[in-house]
Amino acid sequence: MNQNRQITLLRHVQGNPTPEHFGYVESPIPEPGEGEILIRNLYFSLEPAIRGWLEGKANYFEPIPLNGVVRGPTVGRVIKSNDPAYREGDVIFCMNQWEDYSVCSVESILFEKLNPKEGVPLSYYVGPLGGSGTTAYVGLHEIGHIKAGQTVVVSAAAGATGSMVGQIARMRGCRVIGIVGSDEKANMIVDEFGFDGAVNYNTAGDITAAVMALAPEGVDIYFDNVGGPILNAMLLAMKVQGRIVCCGMISDYNRTENPNPITNLWEVVARQLTLQGFLLFTYHDKVPAAQAQLAEWIAAGDIRVAEHITRGIAKAPQAFCELMSGKTKGKALVEVDLTEEA
Amino acid sequence: MNQNRQITLLRHVQGNPTPEHFGYVESPIPEPGEGEILIRNLYFSLEPAIRGWLEGKANYFEPIPLNGVVRGPTVGRVIKSNDPAYREGDVIFCMNQWEDYSVCSVESILFEKLNPKEGVPLSYYVGPLGGSGTTAYVGLHEIGHIKAGQTVVVSAAAGATGSMVGQIARMRGCRVIGIVGSDEKANMIVDEFGFDGAVNYNTAGDITAAVMALAPEGVDIYFDNVGGPILNAMLLAMKVQGRIVCCGMISDYNRTENPNPITNLWEVVARQLTLQGFLLFTYHDKVPAAQAQLAEWIAAGDIRVAEHITRGIAKAPQAFCELMSGKTKGKALVEVDLTEEA
Repeated sequence: MNQNRQITLLRHVQGNPTPEHFGYVESPIPEPGEGEILIRNLYFSLEPAIRGWLEGKANYFEPIPLNGVVRGPTVGRVIKSNDPAYREGDVIFCMNQWEDYSVCSVESILFEKLNPKEGVPLSYYVGPLGGSGTTAYVGLHEIGHIKAGQTVVVSAAAGATGSMVGQIARMRGCRVIGIVGSDEKANMIVDEFGFDGAVNYNTAGDITAAVMALAPEGVDIYFDNVGGPILNAMLLAMKVQGRIVCCGMISDYNRTENPNPITNLWEVVARQLTLQGFLLFTYHDKVPAAQAQLAEWIAAGDIRVAEHITRGIAKAPQAFCELMSGKTKGKALVEVDLTEEA
Repeated sequence: MNQNRQITLLRHVQGNPTPEHFGYVESPIPEPGEGEILIRNLYFSLEPAIRGWLEGKANYFEPIPLNGVVRGPTVGRVIKSNDPAYREGDVIFCMNQWEDYSVCSVESILFEKLNPKEGVPLSYYVGPLGGSGTTAYVGLHEIGHIKAGQTVVVSAAAGATGSMVGQIARMRGCRVIGIVGSDEKANMIVDEFGFDGAVNYNTAGDITAAVMALAPEGVDIYFDNVGGPILNAMLLAMKVQGRIVCCGMISDYNRTENPNPITNLWEVVARQLTLQGFLLFTYHDKVPAAQAQLAEWIAAGDIRVAEHITRGIAKAPQAFCELMSGKTKGKALVEVDLTEEA
């Protein structure tokens, strides 16, 4: 087989994405140009951010065009290199596409040569040691200015980023509360990830009161992955001069034409809060140190990893739709079913 | 006359305040206790923030109780002092009350001994050299991190704080656009205060488009005094990593039970914005330097001052209601009608 299997965007998405929004094509394997590298993708990172590029409108990146291959971070191996700094067998993390083979270069977004740690599964480099983990680490440190003894709340706490936020904050000596959508996830973040408490937003009723019951003095850092009603409730649970790390707003991604209204912004003035948004690529220089610290904690068993692995390129659309519906726990990723003759 | 005329809160305010919400009483002149000072108030600063204390609910300060005297910053002279650091004749800025005579101490909120500059009207110390001017200065520098060459937008731009924000930003080498509610105010901020442009939100239609027409590359700093639909529109006009200085949200003060919904918060993530709220008393240590710089600019004629002066304690409620209805331009203040025998 010498075809490049690709998942394309067949129809623009409004509302919930379904597998029917995606297409499947086989193309010739591309040739890297001058200074470029050909990657054999091994893992696709499924991330809510991808949802934002499926509507045909710019969303901090260019939209994915109709019949264009879906964009997303991948981990893969170099199989041909026209850049003398990289050679066959090198493992690369990069914003590539959902396909067997991608062409990229050192100029590509998020491009990074990995030094996989002995005994650490390579798949971890799309999750806890990839964008999810480093986003959690950079967000808590560069945006949240985390300090020992603080109270940290994170939403989507059983997810790829949220589960890392909670565990990193715990390692930094903070009290950690996670907001999740089911009792199963609530148990998971306490029992497996060592959170100090959990709030199930589907059963808690008044989310502010539920968080305040676990953090009577209020919250120093809220790491927000969801926006919407949970962000609105958290504005009422912050300490004076608290910080809200705005990482994502998944509650609005399937309703971009009708985003959830936020009505408690007065608290930003009254409590002197800081809300700060960030995208990982802006802090690219902080990623290697984050990765090194995370790899150390993971290797030592201090941070536990949960993966939701789907095998096979063809199943990527279905797996992505499951992620966006809140059905997955831990890092959602696709393991590419290799097709090369042995 | 040896009575203390006082304006009280007669009824809690919901919606628009009217003079009927306020009462008037005469009480004995209070006696300062140990370490305290008796002030003869000369000017009351009328400020939108006072609206937040009239509802009977805590709003970063305790609410003003029914039949309690209305709280607000004043400038006055010491007429009796039990604190050896202050003596008769000293001029004091402090969070006092709407009354002839207030008792305060060095521990009181915003307490500051003024050194009135020769030739500068004392009334300026409740406005451009008081809370309004120093709020503008501290907000732009400590929260906005203002730099020469930036594009700065301010709302309520013809008001006490807004007119100072624009002029300070101009002095810092920035391009300045003001958002106002009438063509008269638009002309005023350009002709009198030297703004580079103005947008009348009542006639502009699409506020984002109107601002972008004047700032095609987007806005570095938005100094927000109003919240609501204008904040919502400005979220779409910011540059990547722009900063929003959250100083006030007057559009919601008369509708606290039903605040304007904000629907564009996704831009905080996508554009990596920072929204930061602040209250002046937190930055009290920055006030003297701000005041010195502002006094220098005002004395040199670099910054122009507009005052809306109402004479007479009894007219304070009416003057405050006018401020809250957007009818005033420049700094709204009450000049106390002195009652002492000459």
